[in-house]
Amino acid sequence: MEKQFALGFDFGTASVRACIIDADTGETIATAVSPYKSGENGTLYDPQQPLLARQSPLDYLESMEIAGAQAVDLLQQAGYRPHQVIGIGVDATASTPIPVLENLQPLASLPQFADNLNAYAWLWKDHTAIEEALQITQIAAEHRPNYLAKCGGSYSSEWFWSKIWHCLKVDAKVFHAAYTWVEQSDFIPGILAGISHVNQLKRNVCAAGHKAMYAPDWNGLPDKEFLSMLSPELAALRDRLYETAYDYRHAVGSLCHQWAKKLSLPEGIPVAVGAIDAHVGAIGAGVGKGKLVKIIGTSTCDIMAFSPAEAPNDFSGVAGIVRDSVIPGQIGLEAGQAAVGDLLNWWVRQTLNKDSTYHVQLTQKAAALKPGQSGLIALDWNNGNRNILADQRLTGLLIGQTLATSDYEIYRALIEATAFGARKITELIASQGIEINQIIATGGIGHKNELFMQIYADVLGYPVYLVDNPHTVAVGAAIMGVVAARNIANPAEVIEKLAVKASKVYKPQPEAQAVYTRLYQLYSQLHDAFGRQGHVASLYQVMKELLKIKESTT
Amino acid sequence: MEKQFALGFDFGTASVRACIIDADTGETIATAVSPYKSGENGTLYDPQQPLLARQSPLDYLESMEIAGAQAVDLLQQAGYRPHQVIGIGVDATASTPIPVLENLQPLASLPQFADNLNAYAWLWKDHTAIEEALQITQIAAEHRPNYLAKCGGSYSSEWFWSKIWHCLKVDAKVFHAAYTWVEQSDFIPGILAGISHVNQLKRNVCAAGHKAMYAPDWNGLPDKEFLSMLSPELAALRDRLYETAYDYRHAVGSLCHQWAKKLSLPEGIPVAVGAIDAHVGAIGAGVGKGKLVKIIGTSTCDIMAFSPAEAPNDFSGVAGIVRDSVIPGQIGLEAGQAAVGDLLNWWVRQTLNKDSTYHVQLTQKAAALKPGQSGLIALDWNNGNRNILADQRLTGLLIGQTLATSDYEIYRALIEATAFGARKITELIASQGIEINQIIATGGIGHKNELFMQIYADVLGYPVYLVDNPHTVAVGAAIMGVVAARNIANPAEVIEKLAVKASKVYKPQPEAQAVYTRLYQLYSQLHDAFGRQGHVASLYQVMKELLKIKESTT
Repeated sequence: MEKQFALGFDFGTASVRACIIDADTGETIATAVSPYKSGENGTLYDPQQPLLARQSPLDYLESMEIAGAQAVDLLQQAGYRPHQVIGIGVDATASTPIPVLENLQPLASLPQFADNLNAYAWLWKDHTAIEEALQITQIAAEHRPNYLAKCGGSYSSEWFWSKIWHCLKVDAKVFHAAYTWVEQSDFIPGILAGISHVNQLKRNVCAAGHKAMYAPDWNGLPDKEFLSMLSPELAALRDRLYETAYDYRHAVGSLCHQWAKKLSLPEGIPVAVGAIDAHVGAIGAGVGKGKLVKIIGTSTCDIMAFSPAEAPNDFSGVAGIVRDSVIPGQIGLEAGQAAVGDLLNWWVRQTLNKDSTYHVQLTQKAAALKPGQSGLIALDWNNGNRNILADQRLTGLLIGQTLATSDYEIYRALIEATAFGARKITELIASQGIEINQIIATGGIGHKNELFMQIYADVLGYPVYLVDNPHTVAVGAAIMGVVAARNIANPAEVIEKLAVKASKVYKPQPEAQAVYTRLYQLYSQLHDAFGRQGHVASLYQVMKELLKIKESTT
Repeated sequence: MEKQFALGFDFGTASVRACIIDADTGETIATAVSPYKSGENGTLYDPQQPLLARQSPLDYLESMEIAGAQAVDLLQQAGYRPHQVIGIGVDATASTPIPVLENLQPLASLPQFADNLNAYAWLWKDHTAIEEALQITQIAAEHRPNYLAKCGGSYSSEWFWSKIWHCLKVDAKVFHAAYTWVEQSDFIPGILAGISHVNQLKRNVCAAGHKAMYAPDWNGLPDKEFLSMLSPELAALRDRLYETAYDYRHAVGSLCHQWAKKLSLPEGIPVAVGAIDAHVGAIGAGVGKGKLVKIIGTSTCDIMAFSPAEAPNDFSGVAGIVRDSVIPGQIGLEAGQAAVGDLLNWWVRQTLNKDSTYHVQLTQKAAALKPGQSGLIALDWNNGNRNILADQRLTGLLIGQTLATSDYEIYRALIEATAFGARKITELIASQGIEINQIIATGGIGHKNELFMQIYADVLGYPVYLVDNPHTVAVGAAIMGVVAARNIANPAEVIEKLAVKASKVYKPQPEAQAVYTRLYQLYSQLHDAFGRQGHVASLYQVMKELLKIKESTT
């Protein structure tokens, strides 16, 4: 039988990656990357507005054409033919809403908006809508607490409604020129499928549920009454959005003539409904029963899926609970930490004024320390706390410094702090009766830093499987293409079979685990003392206990 | 009338400074410095014992001869004659006990002890006797709580009994070869006066009271019963120490033939009883009613004097209360902070790995910040807390870091932390009904760092007078010579007249003061939460308030 392949497109923050896998073995056959050409590493900034981050939707298409065509070319060089590609999947960053016309044409492509960044894609890390996010959280807390419960208790400035509302406030012309807004992860599949009216576009439940307050429990998007409390124009916009969102078992459509030509593929290949890059990274890394996937980069995103029967009543403090978002048919869970790699980069670049090679030196020295030997403990809140506390107005903390404390000891304490923060999340998940058997770590940090991985295993108390293949997310997107093309109703097994395999496993070391359990108790004391309103604590023992632990290591 | 002069010798950690002043105007006529020749900057270390720090008593004499003769030579070059010198005063570090023979000859000068550092002077910063200090504190807490009350609640490893007891434990041969032990600040005046039997040596109440638990309340040194609890040999040593200690209104004797010759001075000049360098620095800087002198260097020493009528009942938490130790006839108060310059050096050298020129760069950038703008607050406990908590087992703390926090912001937060720690001390003093009208700052840091001085004025809420003349301590010693030579019963006025005048005054700025008062409340919350046993606190507002203060500055 002739082999079958699937093509995945992974739209990251700086580039798009195309990956073609064997649809039955998961083997990677071809990969290609193309950076976005505009701005600084693909992102457009405004020196006057430091919180602003936008991208050109046209860059997405240009880079997709380059990377996609190149991957197909490599497939052919490997002796296969384009018609063996049976499905296409797409993931993208979120929430990255794009204002578009009725025909899905991005506003940014119109001459009159070419110089207006508000008409561009509002990149996930754009934080101009902080005020709107606070107001949405307040209004929802009062009138629709159920909306907040599914997104961890607070609505973010990075998300769909905050950004669109902000656009309405600061640039009504753009808002009114747009027929509607689409997520980047809907825009791309729509373009590939040649959708001619945006009302026909199947939006993805992953972005809808995690970023736009979409849930079947309340019949889709937030109701008009609620949206009117924000603005009548947002309520009116609801009619130009969508009633139902779909998972990637569904196809948005099939590859259109124009893009078939650009990619040297045959027309008609099913294009799966999109999904968010983090969730698709989890798919590529083999998310499944008992497996928590941590995508660890500048920040960490935790992804898990479990059966509806396992679903807990209350998950306050964990960012997102969305049915079908990770594994269709299951409940998808998204949690996260706002600063992980960023915390280490802060220390190396911002504080020590060193370049990134200094990470290696600090890691080498830090690796020679025993757990607890530094006498330090830190809170990992330099960028707020996403989970468990869901509070952006928290800051960093470091305790235990003496006159002999060195930079590499603080570096290790910061790694440990992120691990303790990660344990807070695994403990909350486990406390809800959801079994965790292993951690799968993927993303930028793992393969660079063995110490980091071992600390995570020791602190979390689970084996940590490292998936360090750079194509993991794109493989996940390709798996979505397989699922859509073959109409697979329960994709859990397919994911397990096709996913990228771990290259290494880090096992908890009992001695280190014991010390870290003591330190974690201190972390928890500080976490609650500084993070929970009304919490009363006696902290006198913190410094004493740190010294005791330190002395017991020598 | 022919002018009269006084000679002061200031024995610092690395050198001796000689200074000749006009006995009626305080004008400095001649100065000279001579470093100690042995070891590293005059201190002998043992690589095997990192806590050990010793000096050669012979270095003291050699350097004194060089500096003294040079100062007298300069006096003559200025047109005056040696017989116009009417008095000599001496200060030295403490506690720096020296084992000596009956004739005051240091053990270190004997051939059989030439290579044994235990026979040398045990420099103030020698910390080999940590264990003994803990035991003394424990035994005193149980049996003689009144002893501890006068030294701030805990006896230090830097002090007289700890060191001598440690010597007995580790090197009984040295202990038994010594007839007795003398403080450096008694040894030098004894040598100058040609004291031939140490029993005739008038010991100074300043070192006795602050370092050897001497107080008239319990008839001098600790009683034999107490000392026996440490060791019978220490109880026996008490008989070879002293019954009464003296202030510097008294002369130890007059300049002996041998030293008159060495210094080119006439025999018979009164040599005042000695005192500790920090206290004499306060004299040189004009300590007096309502004036708190802060000697700010690697650590800070606070010195004050007040009338017995003002004396409070309870001064727990302030290191030392000794009658006659600063201004004879008044109560001397000594408090301090364990790391001030050391805290900044830790940040620059140990953490940032920069050389000391980087202080200047950090200070320039930090000076551009408004109070509260960094959003940071720190505790200054990297070397424990000397006052108010008197707890060496406390460590540093830093709160408020974001991903944008820079090295110079932390530098400023560390300066502020030491200022908040200083305010804890001024508040305690004021709370006891002792009036403070001005702060006089002297020591190494003030003249190097204007930002530091202004922060202190703003945080403390008092005008801070900078006395940055490097001869200040030696001037204080010379003033002691005047007091002894002229039999001045109440030297307060003489001190005021002859002391070095401030070169600059830093006044509190109301706006900055207001912000610092808010920050100080946070410092106090952290101080009590981490420093006081049994203290229960709600710290949730700390990070919030720091952010509010930060935002209010922009």
